[in-house]
Amino acid sequence: MSNQAVCIATYRSYDDKADFHKKAQGIAVGLTVGSWTDLPEARKAEMEKHLGRVISVDVHESSVPGERYADLRIAYPDVNFSRDLPALLVTVFGKLSMDGRIKLLDLDFSSEFVSAFPGPKFGIDGVRKLLGAYERPLLMSIFKSVIGHDLPNLREQFYQQALGGVDLIKDDEILFENPLTPLEKRVEACMEAARQAEEVTGQKLLYAVNLTGPTSKLASQAKRAIGAGANALLFNVLAYGYDVLHELSSDPEITVPIAAHPAMAGALYPSTHYGIAAPLLLGKLMRLAGADLVLFPSPYGSVVMPREENLAVQAALIDPALPVAPSFPVPSAGIHPGLVPLILRDFGTDVVVNAGGGIHGHPMGTAAGGQAFRIAIEAARAGVSLPDAAAKPGNEALQAAIDSWGYKQ
Amino acid sequence: MSNQAVCIATYRSYDDKADFHKKAQGIAVGLTVGSWTDLPEARKAEMEKHLGRVISVDVHESSVPGERYADLRIAYPDVNFSRDLPALLVTVFGKLSMDGRIKLLDLDFSSEFVSAFPGPKFGIDGVRKLLGAYERPLLMSIFKSVIGHDLPNLREQFYQQALGGVDLIKDDEILFENPLTPLEKRVEACMEAARQAEEVTGQKLLYAVNLTGPTSKLASQAKRAIGAGANALLFNVLAYGYDVLHELSSDPEITVPIAAHPAMAGALYPSTHYGIAAPLLLGKLMRLAGADLVLFPSPYGSVVMPREENLAVQAALIDPALPVAPSFPVPSAGIHPGLVPLILRDFGTDVVVNAGGGIHGHPMGTAAGGQAFRIAIEAARAGVSLPDAAAKPGNEALQAAIDSWGYKQ
Repeated sequence: MSNQAVCIATYRSYDDKADFHKKAQGIAVGLTVGSWTDLPEARKAEMEKHLGRVISVDVHESSVPGERYADLRIAYPDVNFSRDLPALLVTVFGKLSMDGRIKLLDLDFSSEFVSAFPGPKFGIDGVRKLLGAYERPLLMSIFKSVIGHDLPNLREQFYQQALGGVDLIKDDEILFENPLTPLEKRVEACMEAARQAEEVTGQKLLYAVNLTGPTSKLASQAKRAIGAGANALLFNVLAYGYDVLHELSSDPEITVPIAAHPAMAGALYPSTHYGIAAPLLLGKLMRLAGADLVLFPSPYGSVVMPREENLAVQAALIDPALPVAPSFPVPSAGIHPGLVPLILRDFGTDVVVNAGGGIHGHPMGTAAGGQAFRIAIEAARAGVSLPDAAAKPGNEALQAAIDSWGYKQ
Repeated sequence: MSNQAVCIATYRSYDDKADFHKKAQGIAVGLTVGSWTDLPEARKAEMEKHLGRVISVDVHESSVPGERYADLRIAYPDVNFSRDLPALLVTVFGKLSMDGRIKLLDLDFSSEFVSAFPGPKFGIDGVRKLLGAYERPLLMSIFKSVIGHDLPNLREQFYQQALGGVDLIKDDEILFENPLTPLEKRVEACMEAARQAEEVTGQKLLYAVNLTGPTSKLASQAKRAIGAGANALLFNVLAYGYDVLHELSSDPEITVPIAAHPAMAGALYPSTHYGIAAPLLLGKLMRLAGADLVLFPSPYGSVVMPREENLAVQAALIDPALPVAPSFPVPSAGIHPGLVPLILRDFGTDVVVNAGGGIHGHPMGTAAGGQAFRIAIEAARAGVSLPDAAAKPGNEALQAAIDSWGYKQ
């Protein structure tokens, strides 16, 4: 039995008085074979390969009411579930999620389970290759306030962003199919603006167009977008489920990177006592399901996730222990050029610096907003302080950004 | 502008010091047009139809740290999103879910939005009609511990449940496609057992077979199950997303009721400060997406939801204000025959009494378990106390249940 394939779930269970060892045993039996001690011996022999096992119980005693908790690790035999994420999640946290104060912290997959997941088609290396940008952090710009805008207006906003030297431009995640800027027209207009900007900047870029609408139409919609010239997709994964992302990313005809947006994630990760921890929710599961880039709340802005949790999301996205390509981490929200040295110190080189207001709100305009970021990225990589870099001729865009938003070194 | 179609979201926002009116205004603008006061007047005229509006701000002051909160109601113009639940949810709670302590309490849909949703194909009346049981609460039995069981074993368990006079039998939600009891074989074996039991009991029943596996194959899998004789489906909605349920329930070839299982719901509803309230998550949204029956944690058992919240889930499932068929409420977990009078008092006649251990764990066996429930239901409807009913000749099954688990009157 010891060599059988299992997936291991790690939970944090809060209880003032529970016998956590008993609780863990109850979960291991209850969520697999249902009952054990009552079974006849002959039946036990047959059922043993289906039985969940307690791997460890790590009790944290505390005299503070509500603060006594234990981390429980339980192994679930793969033979009990099909090789898809809904089956695994329903097995390990379906009914259990409703059984008192318990949070799902992590999942370790068997290699058999992982073998059903090709993972990101591009990942960090693939996205870099598409952009021809191998050694520096990338820069992403977010469309802002484009609801109610027409195509020429959208195109112009795209062009200004592209002129700033950004590597990726993403749709607003709340831009859905609409008569003013329908998907294919939007892709055509924006990709034309991208080519026009490339003549000025000499730089390629990816436009992640928002994939929305009925679940059964997403794949064909993605192919229509690609047919119209889209070279990346944005997807609100948690509004549809990981399996939908997995099916899209596994589709051989979807030949562009997919950026996963964390919309709805705040309904699941921030509670201490309930839900699914961010490094699993936005890290490991997004990557296994095939996200090439993953946006998550940065520790710097208004939409905040603690720095330690942030770095754990990043770690899950790039952990070499998972045998699929790493996903590009995209910490998002509240980013301005003055934060670039901090972002690079926290996240290293394999990071996408992602800004909305920090680009569009630049006092010299959107294009200067992107340029300020690019200058800041080069300065940080070269070990030059932002004020020193900003003082150099031609770097007025960075100076203006620092004057507006300050900087951290 | 005042007659435009809007969907209204109600949030509970927790903040020790915030100006909640300002916060509400920030949400209404930020999640729609992005910015407002800076717009030129001509542009405002064009954009007004896209602008979110604050409907009400109801502040609950408290001197207890962390307990100051406000209920915010914000109207989002329908013109901003497509008529599907992922678009609506991402609009109203995509980014906002990650913005501090905020819980989504409710959604009121415009009639235009609702018109895109046929709702439950059967609902309470349709399920009653299929069963020919019009005036009494229904009884559902849950397969227990069937992982690792073969077809004859499963069939026998089904047959014993059916002999007890139950109206519905549901698969265990953690039974996935497997070589021992594959979907079509399982349906054939169980439906044959149902026919055999009907010869004894004279009673019809619905078998809700668990719909699992890859998202894009669910509809064809449902049709295969129906082709094999399945007369109901069980679906772990939250592991796939509401839109998948909506597409399944709208499919004209899926001609059987769908029972929604609440697996994973505990990751979303129990926190005070985060997530989505149970009456919306398991009530209104399940119904709008087309669930004919909805399981949710009962207030009686180990998997607990407070009674008030439970009744609010029920209210959402049957609220006549929503112009789609009502869904059958199925409060689940911890139910034994001695609780039947309480369940009927809490939920009325339009309820499915749902039991697992309370049927299989009956001292006289599974069939007697179902019979004890049926006797208890008849007694409660007739206003006869359970002990009085149990004392009557032929009602030994109820007496044994009361001796095992007690009763509440």
